[in-house]
Amino acid sequence: MLTTTLHPDRALPADTALRPLAREIFAATRDLPLVSMHGHVDAALLADDEPFPDPAALFVVPDHYLVRMLVSQGVPQDALGVPRRDGVAVEQDPRAIWRTFASRWHLFRGTPTRLWLEHVLVEVFGCDEPPSAQSADRLFDHLSERLAQPEFRPRALFERFNIEILSTTDAADSGLADHARLAAAGWGERVVPTFRPDAVVHLDRPGWRDALTALEQRCGYPIEGYRDLVRALEERRVAFKAAGARASDHGHLGADATPLTDAEADRIVVAALRGQVDPGDAVAFAGHMLFETARMASEDGLVMQLHPGVLRDHDPAVLASRGPDVGYDIPVPTDFTRGLRPLLTAFGHHPGLRMVLFTVDEDTFSRELAPLAGVYPAVRLGAPWWFLDTPDGMRRFREAVTDTAGFYNTTGFVDDTRAFCSIPARHDLARRIDAGYLARLVAEHRLTLDEATETAVDLALTLPRESYAPR
Amino acid sequence: MLTTTLHPDRALPADTALRPLAREIFAATRDLPLVSMHGHVDAALLADDEPFPDPAALFVVPDHYLVRMLVSQGVPQDALGVPRRDGVAVEQDPRAIWRTFASRWHLFRGTPTRLWLEHVLVEVFGCDEPPSAQSADRLFDHLSERLAQPEFRPRALFERFNIEILSTTDAADSGLADHARLAAAGWGERVVPTFRPDAVVHLDRPGWRDALTALEQRCGYPIEGYRDLVRALEERRVAFKAAGARASDHGHLGADATPLTDAEADRIVVAALRGQVDPGDAVAFAGHMLFETARMASEDGLVMQLHPGVLRDHDPAVLASRGPDVGYDIPVPTDFTRGLRPLLTAFGHHPGLRMVLFTVDEDTFSRELAPLAGVYPAVRLGAPWWFLDTPDGMRRFREAVTDTAGFYNTTGFVDDTRAFCSIPARHDLARRIDAGYLARLVAEHRLTLDEATETAVDLALTLPRESYAPR
Amino acid sequence: MLTTTLHPDRALPADTALRPLAREIFAATRDLPLVSMHGHVDAALLADDEPFPDPAALFVVPDHYLVRMLVSQGVPQDALGVPRRDGVAVEQDPRAIWRTFASRWHLFRGTPTRLWLEHVLVEVFGCDEPPSAQSADRLFDHLSERLAQPEFRPRALFERFNIEILSTTDAADSGLADHARLAAAGWGERVVPTFRPDAVVHLDRPGWRDALTALEQRCGYPIEGYRDLVRALEERRVAFKAAGARASDHGHLGADATPLTDAEADRIVVAALRGQVDPGDAVAFAGHMLFETARMASEDGLVMQLHPGVLRDHDPAVLASRGPDVGYDIPVPTDFTRGLRPLLTAFGHHPGLRMVLFTVDEDTFSRELAPLAGVYPAVRLGAPWWFLDTPDGMRRFREAVTDTAGFYNTTGFVDDTRAFCSIPARHDLARRIDAGYLARLVAEHRLTLDEATETAVDLALTLPRESYAPR
Repeated sequence: MLTTTLHPDRALPADTALRPLAREIFAATRDLPLVSMHGHVDAALLADDEPFPDPAALFVVPDHYLVRMLVSQGVPQDALGVPRRDGVAVEQDPRAIWRTFASRWHLFRGTPTRLWLEHVLVEVFGCDEPPSAQSADRLFDHLSERLAQPEFRPRALFERFNIEILSTTDAADSGLADHARLAAAGWGERVVPTFRPDAVVHLDRPGWRDALTALEQRCGYPIEGYRDLVRALEERRVAFKAAGARASDHGHLGADATPLTDAEADRIVVAALRGQVDPGDAVAFAGHMLFETARMASEDGLVMQLHPGVLRDHDPAVLASRGPDVGYDIPVPTDFTRGLRPLLTAFGHHPGLRMVLFTVDEDTFSRELAPLAGVYPAVRLGAPWWFLDTPDGMRRFREAVTDTAGFYNTTGFVDDTRAFCSIPARHDLARRIDAGYLARLVAEHRLTLDEATETAVDLALTLPRESYAPR
Repeated sequence: MLTTTLHPDRALPADTALRPLAREIFAATRDLPLVSMHGHVDAALLADDEPFPDPAALFVVPDHYLVRMLVSQGVPQDALGVPRRDGVAVEQDPRAIWRTFASRWHLFRGTPTRLWLEHVLVEVFGCDEPPSAQSADRLFDHLSERLAQPEFRPRALFERFNIEILSTTDAADSGLADHARLAAAGWGERVVPTFRPDAVVHLDRPGWRDALTALEQRCGYPIEGYRDLVRALEERRVAFKAAGARASDHGHLGADATPLTDAEADRIVVAALRGQVDPGDAVAFAGHMLFETARMASEDGLVMQLHPGVLRDHDPAVLASRGPDVGYDIPVPTDFTRGLRPLLTAFGHHPGLRMVLFTVDEDTFSRELAPLAGVYPAVRLGAPWWFLDTPDGMRRFREAVTDTAGFYNTTGFVDDTRAFCSIPARHDLARRIDAGYLARLVAEHRLTLDEATETAVDLALTLPRESYAPR
Repeated sequence: MLTTTLHPDRALPADTALRPLAREIFAATRDLPLVSMHGHVDAALLADDEPFPDPAALFVVPDHYLVRMLVSQGVPQDALGVPRRDGVAVEQDPRAIWRTFASRWHLFRGTPTRLWLEHVLVEVFGCDEPPSAQSADRLFDHLSERLAQPEFRPRALFERFNIEILSTTDAADSGLADHARLAAAGWGERVVPTFRPDAVVHLDRPGWRDALTALEQRCGYPIEGYRDLVRALEERRVAFKAAGARASDHGHLGADATPLTDAEADRIVVAALRGQVDPGDAVAFAGHMLFETARMASEDGLVMQLHPGVLRDHDPAVLASRGPDVGYDIPVPTDFTRGLRPLLTAFGHHPGLRMVLFTVDEDTFSRELAPLAGVYPAVRLGAPWWFLDTPDGMRRFREAVTDTAGFYNTTGFVDDTRAFCSIPARHDLARRIDAGYLARLVAEHRLTLDEATETAVDLALTLPRESYAPR
């Protein structure tokens, strides 16, 4: 499996009636540039362009997919070097962390993590054996050596990966200094920010007050009520747009977007500023801010990305000891049909609004998402997200939404990557799965091969470009 | 793709181990007559037997699948000739409407609309090129010429389509005059009405008062309370049965069927007659009327078809400007297990009741529908409905319900067609998909080929006939 | 189909690219011993080791899968010999019951019941023709003759089936006398009890008071409040462990596991003892007892099996006339993410807890179950359960959970069998389906054949052994 090259037909359908068609369709997309508009790579990585530190820091510690799997099998987070908030020491030796991971490679059988890592190790770093207890040290040394070479620095990889544009994710208060450095270095067109105001619109999250203070400092005036908050957000959207932003990004527990009156919204914000946050009010305010964001987006043209339905930090003790984003976010059912109704009634036909919906609740694929995207001009469906960004998840997505939404109400492939080196792996995999799905339509005489090939190119490149085009 | 004939193997499995089996199974059903018991064709169409007006009026304007896809991609409904309630002019030129559609043919890739239209254009009308900006005028002229010929009038097509029986959908107050004309012309056995009382049992829908008045006029007495309403409905059921009706049809938001006392039901109706409709009361009353309908059905033998779970008119502005049924109905989760419990407890074993359940919430396939149909003798599962009436939707339906309900607790294929000319396309597609599913069971040695072929015939013809047989 | 042997490739993928791989993978597991840790076979069957009475009593009357299908097609339960509580006579003639079943064999096409029965009839009993009206008597005679032979007694079949260990299901008050007899006969290691306290923790179920009385008698002291109940349960867990139990088993309507204070729990129990059971209190107490069970399990190491989400006895009239477990249990949606949160927060990382989750709501596969099992070390996913214990259900399970949970957060195959003779059929089928899924991963170059084969053995044997190992 892990030799010096991966099998050229990997993740294409095995069926002999489909594989040759899939191969031909995939060939039309395999070398197309990558449009990466929903990533979580830190802009500083590319602004600094320093070498990556070591294999553990690159592949293990920050990858919550990987950490959660090892934790589920009894590996303590300490042994993986996941930092603690209380300052107690965790494993610091990258080689030890790497060994812990490598000796448990079998746990990843059948997972996308396996496929992504295999791609990165073989295609990007030229490893020639799979991770194991036996190979761990050899791989660690091999990777360390490569990481020290100039062609493995972030910008060199960015070029090699053929990334056309990469979007980062940035808090509302961000000064976008790293993006300014990138622009000064001539990289401003290729790395753009995304506006993510979650921290200041969720009044009941622990960091809300700090986030608001940071926003006040960025804006230079106090935020004393709802209108101040809206003004601040609108100003930051202008600044983000000026720095190249194409989109905003919104992670909410639900998809509710019921507007409040300005007076009601103000009452809730003023109470929160006094430290009084009613849980129901906080939920209602978050829903209101989705509605309000759609209003702003319809005016300034920033694409509005919504990915609801994840209960963050399922285990509060882990949140307390390790912080967020360490693998304890668990999906819940999401009601798009009723939740988005007020927003879509108000802005669903507005020519200025483009809204991209993501989900981790695949039950909504055919029941809600495809029917909504299949009628409201403002709505596009993003790629299957997070736990569903997998070969079978992507296949089920196409099989469930194409009937009603077609291909052209989707954005094509959008990765959601924290791990910079895995960006090509993810696009490559998505292109293979879409090629396989399209091959089936051809083999069942539901599309011509020409149509399928054109559609594959659209899903890989044209639709992501067009979906996030400056407006 | 669109040559003068469609590929004979279209929509059969591509797998070389399955296709020959699927071909053989499909051959046993391809020429069987069509039983079409859940359609929305207007009886006047067949009573008048006038030529269809033009290609736009036939294929575009009234097809909400097609209109919604074009709207979702930014085509204004005005440009598609969808009438406005305010009388403002919309596009009137059929050729212009047809061009707008034809130039966007690529949007339908992967959708059932593509498959149905292809079938109709090629098999019914002998078109020899796919719709496109370039071919639009040629196709329009070709279709117009055909529509003027006597063999393309409704009754001639009905014969050619080999329709054994077609059921229309008729409001409770309908006098069934068109059906009387059909009967007088000797078509009474072939075109029958279906009793649809939705308009008079949903007290909170805008047209309720008008629908009730129409029912009063039909019955010849005032409806002043619940008992009058029940009496009127029972009388109309008798009249529908006399006109050949086999079934009633019920579209509710939920599947709740909790009975009220007669006194409580009367209180709600009397209040509604005074213009006072509490939203909760309206929902409770609709649920009660499902229960009451089951009671009536167990006595008079009309098959009770229930298709719940669609939030109608998601955008109230579109409802106000264009009316209902223009593509803005969006599914919501449906609770069959708890909702139907009172009804099934009371009538689920009644020898007089046959209840056919449809859904657009495929999550209920294995969780609720198959377990219910797999034990209650009164329950049969209809075909996958509306957004799920697709190749992959039908396949998922069989894969999810057969385990627990088998084949013989389903009705076989039931189309839900407004577009008269697409009736054969829909049956043809369903027969192909069932053949593919059965071929897999044979190839996996789970059924013999003889059993599979017999089952295919049952799904195509025997079960639809038997499920809606006069009782 | 039913000749003297079944097709060796049955239930393997038909695809020519997959079948040879699936065959090779399956060959590695087909003869492995069976670990059957979640069954409902009566321990007395093996303690007595008497011959099975007759074909109807063995195959028809007690099999709720089979009875419900026949009932759904209009066969009265009386005709199937399902006993009535009111003492009214039901069909007593085993041959008549068998004929009623055999003549309706076509109803089971496509169902797992068909596959299991075919396996049992052909592989276990050497029948050489399928059930039908014509063959019914011949089969009845053939089976009767076999059942009279010593090699068809329960222990002989147990040996022939190559069962390594079989777990029964036993009420909290059980004295485990049959297990003691088995132990005395040297079978104590091979047949072990499972602790099922449902009857005493669901205060609102009809038999609660009787079950509590039985528990009091077993323990030898009155249960006068919550602390007494906990003491009694803990004592019984000790007794069950001493008798070889590895696990407890919990069937709840929901997955809620919110703890109450001891005082609140005591208030509810004391009220129930006075005959006052508030429905909300009963639900809250059941949820509390899940939490409390996790606490006990983390201390004594009994594996905690939870299978929620079934509304028992959907038709109360059937419950009244026939009792529970006759086919009227219908699934409902289940909320694992929020429901289990308190329990997992408290015990999800506890080294003593192993919790195995089952579901009949497949919507939770990718959305909730895989994400939970993929991070909490205490959680493993059981096999797809009940209505989902089917070829396509098992395939969908692997396709939906492996992405996020991998293989090693599942227990491998766990049957849930009342029908002793079908145990090998169920394991055989599961091994075939897993082989087919793994073959696809190999053919798509996502796993090596060596990895797939090793994984297949783990799913068939290593993981079930390890998941239920004494702790």
